Amino acid sequence: MGLETAVTYARTHQADFLEELCHYLKIPSISTLSQHHPDVLQAAQWLQDSLRQIGLEHVQQIETAGNPVVYADWLHAGPDAPTVLVYGHYDVQPVEPLAAWTSPPFTPVVRDGRLYARGVSDNKAQHFSHLKALEAMLQTAGKLPVNVKICFDGEEEVGSPNLAPFVEANQTLLAADFVVVSDGAMHQPDQPTIDYALRGVVAIEIRVTGPNRDLHSGSYGGSVHNPAQAVAEIVAALHHPDGRVAIPGFYDDVDTLSPTERDLLQKVPYSLSQWQTETGAAAAWGEPAFTFFERMTARPTCEVNGIWGGFAGEGFKTIIPAEAGAKISMRLVENQDADKIAQQLTQFVGQLTPPTVTVEVTVQAGADAAVTPYDSAGIQAAFRAYEDGWEATPLLSRGGGSLPIVATFQKLLGAPFVLMPFGLDDNRHSPNEHYHLTHLEKGIVTAVYFYHHLASAVTENSFS
Amino acid sequence: MGLETAVTYARTHQADFLEELCHYLKIPSISTLSQHHPDVLQAAQWLQDSLRQIGLEHVQQIETAGNPVVYADWLHAGPDAPTVLVYGHYDVQPVEPLAAWTSPPFTPVVRDGRLYARGVSDNKAQHFSHLKALEAMLQTAGKLPVNVKICFDGEEEVGSPNLAPFVEANQTLLAADFVVVSDGAMHQPDQPTIDYALRGVVAIEIRVTGPNRDLHSGSYGGSVHNPAQAVAEIVAALHHPDGRVAIPGFYDDVDTLSPTERDLLQKVPYSLSQWQTETGAAAAWGEPAFTFFERMTARPTCEVNGIWGGFAGEGFKTIIPAEAGAKISMRLVENQDADKIAQQLTQFVGQLTPPTVTVEVTVQAGADAAVTPYDSAGIQAAFRAYEDGWEATPLLSRGGGSLPIVATFQKLLGAPFVLMPFGLDDNRHSPNEHYHLTHLEKGIVTAVYFYHHLASAVTENSFS
Repeated sequence: MGLETAVTYARTHQADFLEELCHYLKIPSISTLSQHHPDVLQAAQWLQDSLRQIGLEHVQQIETAGNPVVYADWLHAGPDAPTVLVYGHYDVQPVEPLAAWTSPPFTPVVRDGRLYARGVSDNKAQHFSHLKALEAMLQTAGKLPVNVKICFDGEEEVGSPNLAPFVEANQTLLAADFVVVSDGAMHQPDQPTIDYALRGVVAIEIRVTGPNRDLHSGSYGGSVHNPAQAVAEIVAALHHPDGRVAIPGFYDDVDTLSPTERDLLQKVPYSLSQWQTETGAAAAWGEPAFTFFERMTARPTCEVNGIWGGFAGEGFKTIIPAEAGAKISMRLVENQDADKIAQQLTQFVGQLTPPTVTVEVTVQAGADAAVTPYDSAGIQAAFRAYEDGWEATPLLSRGGGSLPIVATFQKLLGAPFVLMPFGLDDNRHSPNEHYHLTHLEKGIVTAVYFYHHLASAVTENSFS
Repeated sequence: MGLETAVTYARTHQADFLEELCHYLKIPSISTLSQHHPDVLQAAQWLQDSLRQIGLEHVQQIETAGNPVVYADWLHAGPDAPTVLVYGHYDVQPVEPLAAWTSPPFTPVVRDGRLYARGVSDNKAQHFSHLKALEAMLQTAGKLPVNVKICFDGEEEVGSPNLAPFVEANQTLLAADFVVVSDGAMHQPDQPTIDYALRGVVAIEIRVTGPNRDLHSGSYGGSVHNPAQAVAEIVAALHHPDGRVAIPGFYDDVDTLSPTERDLLQKVPYSLSQWQTETGAAAAWGEPAFTFFERMTARPTCEVNGIWGGFAGEGFKTIIPAEAGAKISMRLVENQDADKIAQQLTQFVGQLTPPTVTVEVTVQAGADAAVTPYDSAGIQAAFRAYEDGWEATPLLSRGGGSLPIVATFQKLLGAPFVLMPFGLDDNRHSPNEHYHLTHLEKGIVTAVYFYHHLASAVTENSFS
């Protein structure tokens, strides 16, 4: 049987796959830092070469206003077979604080069964697993059970600002019955989860300016509103003391969680003690009316990603800084409109700004949340794929993170999404990002099963 | 007459003095940065060589637990002549933000009649002026009208942590009738001010830790108390909305300003429009019950010198930072005890700290305020010196800055102080620090007159 041969191919080529993946991981494709732009382009080129080698067709880099989209397809499964669009992103997060890395972030190294490198879990190894699954099927059977389109993004870590216009302009090219994405994280290695929802995100920067230069705090202290104090006052006002977001109107469009959903999320095997081990935080925090897991996945949030102003070096420097700032991101849930939320925050910051300083708010990115019916044929296929390939029955969950483009695909292509993560938390966005080698093999095998089950997907709901 | 010859010497040697000062300014003696420790020692050596060349005696560097004190004396004016201790500091502030400097901070350059260099006004040119005044008298008359002791500090910009123990251990060596310091600033070039009070200072660092690493804000957002938010909450709570400091007990020991003092400060020709030109701030800020000038000089304050946490780079990075912090300094007035205030702040921060994060408070430096009778013979001599040397009648004022050691000198040596600034604001502690060349000449000449008038100082009060 073709399926078994493909699975055997996947299992016996792990060493080759690892070597190949390491080449990809050596490219520091950090999209938010302009000096890494050539590296981002190199990662796109690497993918293009890899897709050609696998045997995909129409392999191309399509220009956008930012980094190129890498596209490829294989459309010979016949008109009755479903078409699946595989989404992934070849850009990675910055590496700071660099000193916290045990090994250099762009020198992939295996320690204790884990492959360490920036971007390995988020998202290179995960979309690489789909490519290797396609390779396994094409190399062994010479064909795929479904039609496949590849759409790899180079700007996910900066909010994919150019991907929605790209999708809008290329709806025929990208038309598909399902969108599959392996990103995000399962909570336990032996307990996969399929996410039927992702949060949206709005990222903004607040810049407070006061005096025309850093002032001597002895000479001027007491007479000048300190921008570092002003930014602290603004940031502190964004939450009520109990953890609720204080931006007026923030929760207006947020739906109540249904008892069914709360039950589903309750079943996810993620305990407070696991949360404490992972985070090292002293105690959980946040909206009192929800469980910590609901707050992480199903509730909107407002986070300070960075705050700065004045002297942060060794010793002290008695100044009133000329300026200060903060970077804020908000995670949104379904029905919250990213533009509206950005506007609400901007207005609120305006209300909080005293006449003694000047505040500028810049919206850097915005994307709505995404939710898909959790009984779709695509999710069913993923369910069976994990049972066969991961040898564990998955649970349904929500993902707390954001893949802005997922909502766009659903809206513009009418394609429900399937989020099937192959990674764990894996220190994504943190120093020492890694990926379990066992997950590399299991992910590729699970992907092979996914494409096979998708070919025979039925609409009955076997698990809800 | 010897006085006129000395003044002529001072006026005709300006070019030599400028060249000599530039050598001193090239030494980047930043005391708060440990990598500049060799430069700090080089500045001490430069002073030692210069003092010997002028003709002072017992020139030596005296070791402390930190940077050495540079000492010298000339004690041949006779037992009836007063002894004056000249204090200055050879260390300088850091230079950040370096990009804001028009010319490199340690490459002295004259532009538009101003000499630009880090540390030129604070404090190298100012104590250098006293040395050149002594040189002028010794070179022309072979003697000084008063006994002189020199005490130059290498740790003023880090709060002089080792100078008080040094003074305590060397009270005989340092015994003097007056302490003279040229530091701080007059507000108008044609209107010198003599400061009869300086504020104290306490510098502390607040360090907030939360999760064990920077977390992905999508994965964990909503469940973790964000250290950058927590530090903002603490910093914001340090002031009432009207600008009063909110630390419990902060104002307990602060005296009411007398009508006489408020009148004195009212006379200082420093307008709100000058303040606005200097600071560029949109509007004055602070305690509503006091004028902006009183708030700058006669009232205690609490300032955020720096705040940090998370990602401050280009673009955005959606993390919950592992830690955040702030540097806070408080300016104190007479009767406030620096240790007690530090303790009050530490306790208050403890009360503000929720169980969801950990906060560490480190006291980095503390010094009480200093106030001296404004009718002392020393201040009278300075008064007459400005009239003769600066050709302007000075006003009495308070200085908003801190010279921690001044209170110590007064307490341990029983010597009233004379604060006679020769500089303006001059961007001290800011980029593009500078010093007017006319002030170099006027300062040296005024210092010559000061030593002469001090010899015949009487205790009658000619100006109060």
